[in-house]
Amino acid sequence: MDYYYGPGRNHLFVPGPVNIPDPVIRAMNRNNEDYRSPAIPAMTKTLLEDVKKIFKTTSGIPFIIPTTGTGAWESALTNTLSPGDRTVSFVIGQFSLLWIDQQQRLGFNVDVVESDWGQGANLDILASKLAEDTAHTIKAVCIVHNETATGVTNNLAKVRKILDDYSHPALFLVDGVSSICALDFRMDEWGVDVALTGSQKALSLPTGMGIVCASPKAIEASKTAKSFRVFFDWKDYLKFYSLGTFWPYTPSIQLLYGLRAALDLLFEEGLENVFARHARLGKATRLAVEAWGLKNCTQKEEWFSDTVTAVVVPPYIDSAEIVRRGWKRYNLSLGLGLNKVAGKVFRIGHLGNLNELQLLGCLAGVEMILKDVGYPVKLGSGVAAACAYLQNNTPLIVSRV
Amino acid sequence: MDYYYGPGRNHLFVPGPVNIPDPVIRAMNRNNEDYRSPAIPAMTKTLLEDVKKIFKTTSGIPFIIPTTGTGAWESALTNTLSPGDRTVSFVIGQFSLLWIDQQQRLGFNVDVVESDWGQGANLDILASKLAEDTAHTIKAVCIVHNETATGVTNNLAKVRKILDDYSHPALFLVDGVSSICALDFRMDEWGVDVALTGSQKALSLPTGMGIVCASPKAIEASKTAKSFRVFFDWKDYLKFYSLGTFWPYTPSIQLLYGLRAALDLLFEEGLENVFARHARLGKATRLAVEAWGLKNCTQKEEWFSDTVTAVVVPPYIDSAEIVRRGWKRYNLSLGLGLNKVAGKVFRIGHLGNLNELQLLGCLAGVEMILKDVGYPVKLGSGVAAACAYLQNNTPLIVSRV
Amino acid sequence: MDYYYGPGRNHLFVPGPVNIPDPVIRAMNRNNEDYRSPAIPAMTKTLLEDVKKIFKTTSGIPFIIPTTGTGAWESALTNTLSPGDRTVSFVIGQFSLLWIDQQQRLGFNVDVVESDWGQGANLDILASKLAEDTAHTIKAVCIVHNETATGVTNNLAKVRKILDDYSHPALFLVDGVSSICALDFRMDEWGVDVALTGSQKALSLPTGMGIVCASPKAIEASKTAKSFRVFFDWKDYLKFYSLGTFWPYTPSIQLLYGLRAALDLLFEEGLENVFARHARLGKATRLAVEAWGLKNCTQKEEWFSDTVTAVVVPPYIDSAEIVRRGWKRYNLSLGLGLNKVAGKVFRIGHLGNLNELQLLGCLAGVEMILKDVGYPVKLGSGVAAACAYLQNNTPLIVSRV
Amino acid sequence: MDYYYGPGRNHLFVPGPVNIPDPVIRAMNRNNEDYRSPAIPAMTKTLLEDVKKIFKTTSGIPFIIPTTGTGAWESALTNTLSPGDRTVSFVIGQFSLLWIDQQQRLGFNVDVVESDWGQGANLDILASKLAEDTAHTIKAVCIVHNETATGVTNNLAKVRKILDDYSHPALFLVDGVSSICALDFRMDEWGVDVALTGSQKALSLPTGMGIVCASPKAIEASKTAKSFRVFFDWKDYLKFYSLGTFWPYTPSIQLLYGLRAALDLLFEEGLENVFARHARLGKATRLAVEAWGLKNCTQKEEWFSDTVTAVVVPPYIDSAEIVRRGWKRYNLSLGLGLNKVAGKVFRIGHLGNLNELQLLGCLAGVEMILKDVGYPVKLGSGVAAACAYLQNNTPLIVSRV
Repeated sequence: MDYYYGPGRNHLFVPGPVNIPDPVIRAMNRNNEDYRSPAIPAMTKTLLEDVKKIFKTTSGIPFIIPTTGTGAWESALTNTLSPGDRTVSFVIGQFSLLWIDQQQRLGFNVDVVESDWGQGANLDILASKLAEDTAHTIKAVCIVHNETATGVTNNLAKVRKILDDYSHPALFLVDGVSSICALDFRMDEWGVDVALTGSQKALSLPTGMGIVCASPKAIEASKTAKSFRVFFDWKDYLKFYSLGTFWPYTPSIQLLYGLRAALDLLFEEGLENVFARHARLGKATRLAVEAWGLKNCTQKEEWFSDTVTAVVVPPYIDSAEIVRRGWKRYNLSLGLGLNKVAGKVFRIGHLGNLNELQLLGCLAGVEMILKDVGYPVKLGSGVAAACAYLQNNTPLIVSRV
Repeated sequence: MDYYYGPGRNHLFVPGPVNIPDPVIRAMNRNNEDYRSPAIPAMTKTLLEDVKKIFKTTSGIPFIIPTTGTGAWESALTNTLSPGDRTVSFVIGQFSLLWIDQQQRLGFNVDVVESDWGQGANLDILASKLAEDTAHTIKAVCIVHNETATGVTNNLAKVRKILDDYSHPALFLVDGVSSICALDFRMDEWGVDVALTGSQKALSLPTGMGIVCASPKAIEASKTAKSFRVFFDWKDYLKFYSLGTFWPYTPSIQLLYGLRAALDLLFEEGLENVFARHARLGKATRLAVEAWGLKNCTQKEEWFSDTVTAVVVPPYIDSAEIVRRGWKRYNLSLGLGLNKVAGKVFRIGHLGNLNELQLLGCLAGVEMILKDVGYPVKLGSGVAAACAYLQNNTPLIVSRV
Repeated sequence: MDYYYGPGRNHLFVPGPVNIPDPVIRAMNRNNEDYRSPAIPAMTKTLLEDVKKIFKTTSGIPFIIPTTGTGAWESALTNTLSPGDRTVSFVIGQFSLLWIDQQQRLGFNVDVVESDWGQGANLDILASKLAEDTAHTIKAVCIVHNETATGVTNNLAKVRKILDDYSHPALFLVDGVSSICALDFRMDEWGVDVALTGSQKALSLPTGMGIVCASPKAIEASKTAKSFRVFFDWKDYLKFYSLGTFWPYTPSIQLLYGLRAALDLLFEEGLENVFARHARLGKATRLAVEAWGLKNCTQKEEWFSDTVTAVVVPPYIDSAEIVRRGWKRYNLSLGLGLNKVAGKVFRIGHLGNLNELQLLGCLAGVEMILKDVGYPVKLGSGVAAACAYLQNNTPLIVSRV
Repeated sequence: MDYYYGPGRNHLFVPGPVNIPDPVIRAMNRNNEDYRSPAIPAMTKTLLEDVKKIFKTTSGIPFIIPTTGTGAWESALTNTLSPGDRTVSFVIGQFSLLWIDQQQRLGFNVDVVESDWGQGANLDILASKLAEDTAHTIKAVCIVHNETATGVTNNLAKVRKILDDYSHPALFLVDGVSSICALDFRMDEWGVDVALTGSQKALSLPTGMGIVCASPKAIEASKTAKSFRVFFDWKDYLKFYSLGTFWPYTPSIQLLYGLRAALDLLFEEGLENVFARHARLGKATRLAVEAWGLKNCTQKEEWFSDTVTAVVVPPYIDSAEIVRRGWKRYNLSLGLGLNKVAGKVFRIGHLGNLNELQLLGCLAGVEMILKDVGYPVKLGSGVAAACAYLQNNTPLIVSRV
């Protein structure tokens, strides 16, 4: 029994959890198995090897943890830092805010760098903090690659450059929850020490896996980090890695098979093609927003996110009503505005396993909803703008025959 | 292993097989069972009772046959007619043509009434034939409710009226393959003697069930009909109905559960709402075609089909290229033009479990393909026209909470 | 909603439909697709090629028909014979009886050769009939390879030998419904002209595919055979084979993917290993029956079937009660006795995707049911006998790592 | 692609993860959804209400946490205790040992009470500790209801009685991972303060949910407990409960639907019937072990577990070889001996959605493996003993028609 039903498909455009490809749903459609048989370790070995590719790392060590993104955050922090440690962290929206809240609750001393919601992390302040910190009291710079609440992408290469400019040894911890597998992410090149994502985002799986990747420097830090941790302790994983049985506690058999299938699809399409597809759909979405005469919550092009677009509605409209109506009338799931931007923005997630016509159906739906709630949109305008771009830029995609 | 893969969903807009609702896919995701256990007859009883509702009959007897629409045709004909029998049948497109071909191969003497492909059945000729046939040599009038190749819907109430006007006792046999469960169909009211459909059409199941419903008069006719038949013989079904075990040979367990789920969804939505949804999506499609400046293959509004629209392309375009390109570039499946209209039309199926945004995604795709192949379409125009209509006419659909 | 529920798995031991392997269930867990896209013909080509392997033919032409075994029978007969044609056919149980009934209803002149139910086909009578038939009035010898109702396997090599001994040109038509993919079947070597099976038997799929394979001689015969046929006409298939689109009417997308997966599993295990596994499980079952002190319905070892065992119960027990009780008490599905042996035998199907412990669970269940219904079985005796054999004869089976 | 394949089903008899019922697999066979739509909270409300029933509590507050049993432990401990707190905890096998290890790593001061592996918790020592502790320095008594490594069930009613005898206010924390939904568990009656289980055990779901239930006293304790916790903090859940949106971070949509289906099945069967079924299968297993002449690792009947039986092998046999061989030869998954009993015991899990014939198949398999590895078992003996018991004690189970 489902708890809702509308004819036809649900159009899932929240920025997570996202659409699961059918081959992945099929791969997970199975009974449990003994995870101590020879089969599961054999598969796990391939998963750990292949997961590194989505982080673009060869030296990192991945941990596939039965948890959510929030748990992955905690794993990243508690394994590398000690209570009282100073971190620099940036509030640019609800998820970066929640991560900082976690950092504070874990007892770190957080230098909170605030920006307007709709701007990227203020890296000038980072630079000045690092410049001042000749004593290296800053133990970690924590940053969200892509803020899911506002659709803002931070420039990680620049963060690395600033760290390098000041030869600062702080750990570089990155939340890649709504970026990894959708936006180009280069762990090794950017010297990221811990990167993490969640299965229900661009990997296009169900929720349930927090995937964390640690650089050798992070692994080294974990040996002295004093934060309390048991469930999230990397040590337990490393012990079972060396035993060749891999799992300190029971993994989800279904998610392992799902991850295997998801990675296979990503590699078959080609990671760079996946990024290009996200760029294409992101651009098309922004062109539609522009055509509707609405503002992108993200204030500058340099921060535009190719995985989620937060659309600012006029003051006389409650963006939550747009989301409600989309669901009830068109079986369309859009993202709510959160916290500071609640009621002010709605969000279109365009990440994960998605194609042009799915997005165009969503955009057409948004147009009708806008009209429903009294915004004087010209019907078809956003779709026209998106089509004009997509028709020129979409490659031939269907393959295998 | 699939034999093709493109990122995101396939957009399935051929006029059959159509999209299967997820709850139905779930219901069929199962092992085989003993069909002679008490469970399967118990379920079958509900199916036979409920299937009558989709034909709008109380006196008809349904047969759920493990076959396709072609087999259902053969079941309808061979059980009610004898070799040499005279039938009147109408060619208005490829499927009505194939049915006539079958009638001829089965040895009937067919009065073939031809119309332009794009017109409905010529009922004036029917009237004159019946008028002349005072000896009642015509044993059956065979008509396709909805011609899937051209998107033409015939007026069955009018056929009945003509039969009544001449008090003609001919059997009234109807192919409802692409109409039943999508267009209003009234077996009892229209005095239809045999009606039939296939599971992969508006029932939104996989292929594999030919569902035939026979009036008491048709059952009576079957007692003397001399056409050879064994697999398709209703007698075997009737025998097992009276035994309470229902199946003369092994049914597909999966399709039985699927049919149960499909009927449940149809009744939850409400058959009249289902028809209204098809009318809405059909109208939206036709408005888009008009906005593109293209012609509907169907020549008059009275014949417009709410389940499939055949779109005529300009002579300098090969419609097959539109279909090919849709599949390769946008993961969109459109219907080819068949036989006389091959290369000249492509078809948009808008039947089965489908909603507004799915259709709008398809229409946006068609616009881009039209541009791809050199037709000077104004991008967004069709979607705009469809949206303008849909935004005013779509009810709140998502329910259960 | 299921129509029954017991905790744990259903133990499916009817001789069809049989257990579907999980990878096959997964492969079929999918939406519909356009069968006219490039993907489906590409897959179909591999299916037609690979299906020949299960018949052990290189020269035969297979037809994958959306029907059941009964339909496959009709396809075999109507494509090769004409009304009035003389056939020789053998009654050895309910299914051979039904096939003869079909032959008679199709208008053939059938020489019915009867045997006790529990014996194989009387091939001496065949020999004498062929000897007498110097005028070659016998057009076909029709025989069931494995009679599912009694668990009797006929010797097809011997049939061929008799045909050859008399240089008789009659067509050799074989029902391999409960044998092909389980028992060794050699179409080319045995000169079989039409062989057929159903998807729900040893192929371990849902019901819905009748698979028929025709020798060049049978194809030749089809050009002059005068039986009425339309749906079952090979001609339509051959036309679409030459077009490269393969399907004269809509196939079940799900069954195509299922067949692909089922064949892959069979070839991975190896057909000869599959036969050996069936031989092993058949032998184990017979040893259990013997240990229980019950009689096999099959009277001689030369006819013992490795796919189904019909067990004779003492006269004071109604075998139908055994089946009923198995289902209600132990979630075990056994086969009923049919027609002449109704109430007298129950059947254990041991064909398809099955292994040792599944069978042993079934045998243990049968022992408890026998006790339930008052038969003085020694609990554990049948399992002990089966185990003693299996423990010595089961190879290491689990692979891939 | 699976990483192993053997013909027929895998026989899953590890004590977790256990077999998932087909209706639950079906319920989880779905795409993601927006968990902020009205549908998911509506379903969640029913889940939270119904989950209380499996704990037999009306006053407890449940938390459904995206984690494993290990995480559920951590949630129970960190929310109710502070670093330095004194706990009493019992080692009776590997899992109780791991829980104590966690307690120590979390900084508690654990009074470890050891027993032989194969004995229950030494409650006399608990009594004496409580007697001495007039200052109430003991903050919690932590006990595993059922030790999965040895198949030992502790008497929780007795623990409560001892606490009451000494009017000791210590919290009563219970790991019910391999008991809840299989063994009778009475949270309110026994005054349990925190009880927990994991989805992959008797609930018969995939891994991924740690389900924790807190008494009002535990909730009160959580307000002052000083253990570091963020991901596992109940406070976040309570906040979202009061908001009516329920989830502080993304839940697994699939597991929610799976839990709904699993609870529905449990309630349909009836919890007391579920317990009786486990008792029946546990007893049958022990009778088989006895018949084989082998020892149960559990030393006294009062501790016999109805969810898992650890079987002691003779010294000349390596129990790991039994497990390996079961998997490779019979597609049977048994549990390894862990830690102190590695190589000495193998384990048969008989919990979750399981029936008689499944267990009997497993027992027959174990007999053959025992023979394989050189133990002089009498084939059939264990099955005979189990059948003799089951045949007298199994109710009619299959229902709905």
